[in-house]
Amino acid sequence: MKQSKWIWYPGDFELYHSMLLHNRRRVNGVYKNLNSQKEIDVADTYYYPMWRVDAPRRNCTLIKKAKIENKETVEFFSNADNACMIINGKYHAPGTKVELEKGEYTVRLTGFKNSGFPCFYIKGDTFASDESWEVNDFDKKGEKAGCNNSYLSPDDDPEVFKFSYKRLDPVSITRTAGGVVYDFGKEVFGKITLKNTIPKNCELLIVLGETVEEATDIYEANNVLNAIVKDGEYVSQSSALRYAYIPDFEGETELYLDFEYLDIEDVAEFKCDNELINKIWDTCVYTLHLNMREGFFDGIKRDRWVWSGDAYQSYFVNYYLTRDKETVKRTIRMLRGRAPITTHINTITDYTFYWICSIWDYYYFTKDTEFVRDVYPDMLATLEFIEGRLSEDKMYTTRNGDWVFIDWAQFDRKEGPICAEQMLLCHSYKAMASCAELLDDTKTKDYCLDRARYMEERINQLYWDKEKGAFVDDYTSGRRNVTRHANIFALLFDLTSKERQDSIIKNVIYNKEIAPITTPYFEFYELDAMCKIGDFKYVTDMLDSYWGGMLRLGATTIWEEFDPKMQGTEHYAMYGEKYGKSLCHAWGASPIYLLGKYALGVRPTSAGYATFDIVPNLMCFNNIEGKVPVLDGYVSVKMDKCSITVLTDMEGGTLVYNGVRYPVCKGEELRITI
Amino acid sequence: MKQSKWIWYPGDFELYHSMLLHNRRRVNGVYKNLNSQKEIDVADTYYYPMWRVDAPRRNCTLIKKAKIENKETVEFFSNADNACMIINGKYHAPGTKVELEKGEYTVRLTGFKNSGFPCFYIKGDTFASDESWEVNDFDKKGEKAGCNNSYLSPDDDPEVFKFSYKRLDPVSITRTAGGVVYDFGKEVFGKITLKNTIPKNCELLIVLGETVEEATDIYEANNVLNAIVKDGEYVSQSSALRYAYIPDFEGETELYLDFEYLDIEDVAEFKCDNELINKIWDTCVYTLHLNMREGFFDGIKRDRWVWSGDAYQSYFVNYYLTRDKETVKRTIRMLRGRAPITTHINTITDYTFYWICSIWDYYYFTKDTEFVRDVYPDMLATLEFIEGRLSEDKMYTTRNGDWVFIDWAQFDRKEGPICAEQMLLCHSYKAMASCAELLDDTKTKDYCLDRARYMEERINQLYWDKEKGAFVDDYTSGRRNVTRHANIFALLFDLTSKERQDSIIKNVIYNKEIAPITTPYFEFYELDAMCKIGDFKYVTDMLDSYWGGMLRLGATTIWEEFDPKMQGTEHYAMYGEKYGKSLCHAWGASPIYLLGKYALGVRPTSAGYATFDIVPNLMCFNNIEGKVPVLDGYVSVKMDKCSITVLTDMEGGTLVYNGVRYPVCKGEELRITI
Repeated sequence: MKQSKWIWYPGDFELYHSMLLHNRRRVNGVYKNLNSQKEIDVADTYYYPMWRVDAPRRNCTLIKKAKIENKETVEFFSNADNACMIINGKYHAPGTKVELEKGEYTVRLTGFKNSGFPCFYIKGDTFASDESWEVNDFDKKGEKAGCNNSYLSPDDDPEVFKFSYKRLDPVSITRTAGGVVYDFGKEVFGKITLKNTIPKNCELLIVLGETVEEATDIYEANNVLNAIVKDGEYVSQSSALRYAYIPDFEGETELYLDFEYLDIEDVAEFKCDNELINKIWDTCVYTLHLNMREGFFDGIKRDRWVWSGDAYQSYFVNYYLTRDKETVKRTIRMLRGRAPITTHINTITDYTFYWICSIWDYYYFTKDTEFVRDVYPDMLATLEFIEGRLSEDKMYTTRNGDWVFIDWAQFDRKEGPICAEQMLLCHSYKAMASCAELLDDTKTKDYCLDRARYMEERINQLYWDKEKGAFVDDYTSGRRNVTRHANIFALLFDLTSKERQDSIIKNVIYNKEIAPITTPYFEFYELDAMCKIGDFKYVTDMLDSYWGGMLRLGATTIWEEFDPKMQGTEHYAMYGEKYGKSLCHAWGASPIYLLGKYALGVRPTSAGYATFDIVPNLMCFNNIEGKVPVLDGYVSVKMDKCSITVLTDMEGGTLVYNGVRYPVCKGEELRITI
Repeated sequence: MKQSKWIWYPGDFELYHSMLLHNRRRVNGVYKNLNSQKEIDVADTYYYPMWRVDAPRRNCTLIKKAKIENKETVEFFSNADNACMIINGKYHAPGTKVELEKGEYTVRLTGFKNSGFPCFYIKGDTFASDESWEVNDFDKKGEKAGCNNSYLSPDDDPEVFKFSYKRLDPVSITRTAGGVVYDFGKEVFGKITLKNTIPKNCELLIVLGETVEEATDIYEANNVLNAIVKDGEYVSQSSALRYAYIPDFEGETELYLDFEYLDIEDVAEFKCDNELINKIWDTCVYTLHLNMREGFFDGIKRDRWVWSGDAYQSYFVNYYLTRDKETVKRTIRMLRGRAPITTHINTITDYTFYWICSIWDYYYFTKDTEFVRDVYPDMLATLEFIEGRLSEDKMYTTRNGDWVFIDWAQFDRKEGPICAEQMLLCHSYKAMASCAELLDDTKTKDYCLDRARYMEERINQLYWDKEKGAFVDDYTSGRRNVTRHANIFALLFDLTSKERQDSIIKNVIYNKEIAPITTPYFEFYELDAMCKIGDFKYVTDMLDSYWGGMLRLGATTIWEEFDPKMQGTEHYAMYGEKYGKSLCHAWGASPIYLLGKYALGVRPTSAGYATFDIVPNLMCFNNIEGKVPVLDGYVSVKMDKCSITVLTDMEGGTLVYNGVRYPVCKGEELRITI
């Protein structure tokens, strides 16, 4: 018998788990309640998502037609409230096993499920359920059924996201005056589990903290569990923490953590002679993994939603760390949601543009045409949505309800379309054109290239300030304000002439009068640009001061933001809350990308990694050694002051050093002395 | 405290109950199973809906802003999995009671529910939950919250449709050779209930039938229950039946029916000196009531779905029988479903056109501007959908996936656009224009009137056959075939000149060579047209032969179809099944409409019943007497060969007799001798 998979309406698995995760956030904490008899109360309230959250379909119909030459059986399963399998017009209930004689068959699976989403499973040969089944709905026909390799057994439940779990003991348990502090030694994520509690049935408070300060500050901590112990046991929802604190409890209990994670293998490796950098690399890897969940999260303490701009950076880090494509694909689908499109992704204009770009980048790094084909109709609909909101001269303009983000930095957002948005849209047109070309949609390709050319010209006309030798934020206010953002994009996306790029480097990048980038979010683009222009010192200084700065303060994962000028618990505050900062934030993992791309120097030079260069650079190190994933293979690179050694199991690689190109043969170690 | 109502995203109550009812149909029956040890098996399989079924939202946010002058409390309830009430930014969980001081407040209710749909309830004064709350979503803002008067208590559950129930005993219980037959005396609908069964735990078969032949024909009956009795009791899902049959059961049981219905008051009355007609009237009333459920059903045995063309006729019957607006409004919302529109309603082109017409008709009979305003955005979207599929010359043309129905009769459907569809679209433009005018949308009004004028001209150009003196089905095939359908529409909707109408009456209506209407569905329009042209004899003959014919055969409700030439159980067969015909079909209730409109003669002469004529006509009777609902009032009419008496509690009425118009004063009986 063929391996069967649970199947569903394509995209509905992602919509469902996205719906759950976006509705999971809670406001909780402890407050002194003046009305209650109890001295303190635990607030535990739903926190509603900040954008439209789409639900999967509750009805689904899938179909497969085939001719069989020999007898076969089909056995039908479904999780739906009502479902049937219709074979050549005859209805069969779930649980039915039907013998098919040689002949032609049309098999239709259809069902309704009020909660969750309807899924089907057929044990069989020709009709084994998998992606060869097609949607046969009143809206759509012919799309491939959704499925994935985590749900292969009839006992699997696609409504339960398949995490792995492992039980962790606290590395230390400390009794304090007020209670007991459990320390897991580093940031973790999972379910707090109590065992052998006495009294067997009781209520107790568990305060979680990413720091010990937070965990023991019960009125300010973000995450407080009102644990209702039954028969000595309790299991919490999954949360982020390093410390758990049980105040004022006179009984006994054993506290564990069921660590929840996805078992994704790392391909990349990095080592150098600077131990701090090695530790940064390891910490970045751990940070990214903690944020790789149903989708790429921004941070695991809060809000655990999926944000397109944040995820966009995680994708790049992931391409330089693992071979996992599933988390990228799930995130892209979650972000898009369901038709009709009525607002920008996460309500943020730039986040819609990143979404389009991310699909071409995905192909560029993975060579997965199928996925591009699957989401291409959504790309077209997204482009239509964007174009329905352009200005009369077909440039981006802010419409009511659009959140123009780019960065937390100050822009003249209200004054008119800002340059960085135009650049992202222009870059999206190019990404769209590349995808269209990949799928032989020449009309769209030509159209998008034409739009991109037009926009590039207009951007260079409208936003370039000759006197300042830089792009200005907007051209309508007359203020001609220069920020780094648009100018960084101009360098990264090659949006202007070599001459103007040089001018940007001089007048913006190295101009101390231009306000610095203050968020690690946009730092990603700045560091990428700095490496692109070859200023590796800037990057290694940042690694030391910014990432190293956190590690020196004891960080076990990379924070949402870091300001070396702050003191003590000041570091943990953000968004007006004492412990509002996320201490495990995905965008902090960018060194993996930077070191892989610019130190080990592995970079695709054509789509789908058909060709790639290896341009190792010691930066400030004496030696570096590591590995980068390339499609299903890898490249390993070793460099010191005397030699470079590379080995890859993939074709298409070229070692580049000092302007000389050395083709690298698959499976053959290449060593050059320098 | 103000009366609060459960509130939800507008339209979601209807979407939810529509989703449930469209997913409730089952294929069941008994078959000899060769593989099973049991001699017979009961098949019980889900039968999937024939069109896209839309689900309600799983996330919903509603808002209300107000300033209060005095202290108030708000107490918050929700059925959602996760919900909160946010008062001026502060989060509160369900179950919370909050005291508000004098001041300005923004209160937001938001929640997520995986199954069903999220609903909210606030006990309070200013903030009592009702239609004064508004949607505040990422898609939409400002739409009134959904609610209805059936869900007023915090204990109510909007996910349970509020039917009334009454327990019925069988009128006779007959032991036959094979088992026991329970007869409820007439067609009923509800839950079969067993009590005091011995053995207390057992399985038994209950075969339902609209006729005794069906109930006792276990292999052919449509509806067979495999009753699993626990503790002596069993309750079935609701079904249609007159007879229940328990074959081969050696134990004992008591069988009842929990009759399920909506308690809707009849306003209309009709009596004449012909007892058969009186019985027809009563039977029609009962038939319509049985089909007034979550929406207007086609038939209660099968399929119990909501069909736009069928419902369209029920609306008219309802306007002449009750003051109930809720069932009409629910049905209209159920039929429309959720954006985006991708297929015609029920996949049938004409059914989309009827849907538009039904909204203007609804206003015409009810004066309910609010509902028109509520569904107007859906009307505009529907028009946009229709217009996106017109031909180049802006006439209707069949697109892939469109079901062109009009009637089961033969048309040249494949040859090109058929005349009757063009006429319905033209009529829809007029209905749309009237709604637009009502809502002061002058642009749409002018546009639609212009389109209607254009279409009327084109229809008269393209489809009129001078030689035949009639409209032909199509103009592309060259066959110039004449059927009654388009010509009936031309008369009913005044789509052509007086001269051509006379020609139609002569060359089509009274031309025996033109194939007769064979379905009771289209008979509705033919009888309406015959009354309009004053041929009451045709109508009373039909009442006697068609409706009377069924009653003579013992019908207790009006059938889906009736052919006097058939014999015995031939009457019950349809769609290739021995008992496939529905014996309680809503469209059979049209005599209520015809007798109210043309015998009692009550007809609105302007929108919203602002003015109305009373044009009584004895037809073939010696005397008639009755009552017709007019908005919140009524008109009662009594006529014999010597006099007419009318009384109404509404203003705007005029008695019309023999061309003379007698104004009728509200509350004053007017009697004229004739």
